[in-house]
Amino acid sequence: MKQWEKNIRQVTPYIPGEQPKMEQVVKLNTNECPYPPSPMVAQAVAKMDCGKFRLYPDPEVSELVGAIAEYEKVPTERVFVGVGSDDVLGMAFLTFFNDTKPVLMADVTYSFYDVWANLFHIPFETVPLNEQLEIEPEDYFKENGGVVFPNPNAPTAIAMPLSSVEKIIENNQDVVVIVDEAYIDFGGQSALRLTEKYDNLLVVRTFSKSRAMAGMRIGYAVGSEKLICAMKAVKFSYNSYTMNQAAIEAGVAAIRDDDYFKKIVGKIVETREQAKKKLTELGFSVTDSKTNFLFATHQTMAAEAIFEQLKERNIFVRYFKKERIDNYLRITIGTEKEMEILYDALREILS
Amino acid sequence: MKQWEKNIRQVTPYIPGEQPKMEQVVKLNTNECPYPPSPMVAQAVAKMDCGKFRLYPDPEVSELVGAIAEYEKVPTERVFVGVGSDDVLGMAFLTFFNDTKPVLMADVTYSFYDVWANLFHIPFETVPLNEQLEIEPEDYFKENGGVVFPNPNAPTAIAMPLSSVEKIIENNQDVVVIVDEAYIDFGGQSALRLTEKYDNLLVVRTFSKSRAMAGMRIGYAVGSEKLICAMKAVKFSYNSYTMNQAAIEAGVAAIRDDDYFKKIVGKIVETREQAKKKLTELGFSVTDSKTNFLFATHQTMAAEAIFEQLKERNIFVRYFKKERIDNYLRITIGTEKEMEILYDALREILS
Repeated sequence: MKQWEKNIRQVTPYIPGEQPKMEQVVKLNTNECPYPPSPMVAQAVAKMDCGKFRLYPDPEVSELVGAIAEYEKVPTERVFVGVGSDDVLGMAFLTFFNDTKPVLMADVTYSFYDVWANLFHIPFETVPLNEQLEIEPEDYFKENGGVVFPNPNAPTAIAMPLSSVEKIIENNQDVVVIVDEAYIDFGGQSALRLTEKYDNLLVVRTFSKSRAMAGMRIGYAVGSEKLICAMKAVKFSYNSYTMNQAAIEAGVAAIRDDDYFKKIVGKIVETREQAKKKLTELGFSVTDSKTNFLFATHQTMAAEAIFEQLKERNIFVRYFKKERIDNYLRITIGTEKEMEILYDALREILS
Repeated sequence: MKQWEKNIRQVTPYIPGEQPKMEQVVKLNTNECPYPPSPMVAQAVAKMDCGKFRLYPDPEVSELVGAIAEYEKVPTERVFVGVGSDDVLGMAFLTFFNDTKPVLMADVTYSFYDVWANLFHIPFETVPLNEQLEIEPEDYFKENGGVVFPNPNAPTAIAMPLSSVEKIIENNQDVVVIVDEAYIDFGGQSALRLTEKYDNLLVVRTFSKSRAMAGMRIGYAVGSEKLICAMKAVKFSYNSYTMNQAAIEAGVAAIRDDDYFKKIVGKIVETREQAKKKLTELGFSVTDSKTNFLFATHQTMAAEAIFEQLKERNIFVRYFKKERIDNYLRITIGTEKEMEILYDALREILS
């Protein structure tokens, strides 16, 4: 090994859900939306002025921030946008988690939280979910340097009632509390309005799930003006331009088409409720999902074996070989047709 | 101040060049290309399948990496892409600069290098340029934890001959050497082929200047397979999806249209050479720019005053109130028409 190789940063690579390149697969492994984005997105792209690409994009991203602020009924000063909610969350960690006390996060939760904590030298402590894989608000009442949790949680799919979320915030007013609402549109109760009551609450959202825009990388945060102002300062201090012109214009179109948004979310929720029944009939236990995926464990067959056999049939779901959840599958809700293919395959595999 | 506010990260905000929102300005302040991107970019956007936006983009960005590799005549394993060269450079700092010895950078250079060093807790040392504002290769022969410099340097616009660049690399084989070639297409000698000889050399490029794509945020690095592999591991460890689908498709189209690229670069170089003469006639001293901007100081009138008076006439150039260069203007090369407006305004201001 050469001298310079000794100074390469050592990391544990993240293994994202497979993005198979062949056609003809049923892809239920990365919680994407089974429907295309709003037709208004295609219209916005069609009339895009590519001549503008020669200029740097507006660093304040005012157009998209404005559209989101209007949608969420908050002033523009309370909105921060980024390259997917991963970018927004990472920026929030970097901006707010600078205490010597540990940031609290669940033991089973979104897998990037501890990665960012390590990346930014942030001490953290994992708090076990209860036996039913739920977050217990009281577990977050102890001294800490910040709190972060998704609601609904992933990959468990379980939502906390708003009263429990508020209990956590109420008892943590000396630190920043981040509620990651990537999946909130599928049935959870949002904490967004609580940002008016608690200036230390940051609510993070994404266009990747309910708005069918994973490919365009758009996420945002809503919080008090103080929180958003601090995030902007950190962001501008080291990378002023991250949202490209196409994402800005497509994003504005997507958030303005509320009818389409409600229609596809409604369809996904309907398919999910049906899927809960079907999987239960097939011998699975599923959590009470309020997301666009199911978290399921089978009474007799090991999750990993089901995962492998589905894959052989070109059906991709997600399996995490991780303590506590290594007998669960995370299954994205697809179209009704895709789900029928899944049920048929499961019937075969389990028979 | 509330308790949580004490834990907000303290930063010095970066002030990017103004992006005036009114029309009718002459914008020569952020080194953008005065010409639109290749017509093939508009074609690629017009035929973009927005239905695909529902899916996460290919995390390997294979399509764009492939097009760049083909253009640069290197294997795909030696190419890394990111959201503008800022993203690529930041990732390189994070990946390679983990020594306790200081990273060497010039005292007058791209303003984000020390910002990233601070952000990632990287020790660094600034090495003064010589009296002619040039990099002296010998100054970089001392012990260090890495070396980074732009060639041509910014904002001085001065290029180093390839032999000097190689001297720096030759004398620094125990660390990673990053050559930031954001402006190389306008007349400098690229170190890209040296990546075949030195496995510790990383050459970074951008689509923002010579490819007229600042608005789409695309940058890339070419280096040995070992270097690129390490950068990918770090990137994937904390944010797998950053390049959006539109940037990928527009980027492929842009790099494939070599004729158009050569045409606009040729025009800019021609206008630049003319601008050198014109500014000299107006009493400026200009460095021997090999970039798409001029670095100019006037014999009698203070740079800041010229800057302010140009701004009053809706002509935006860049002024840095910074030691050693606080009597210089950085003037982006615009279209010939824009430059004529500039010359006229300067004539008025200086008379």
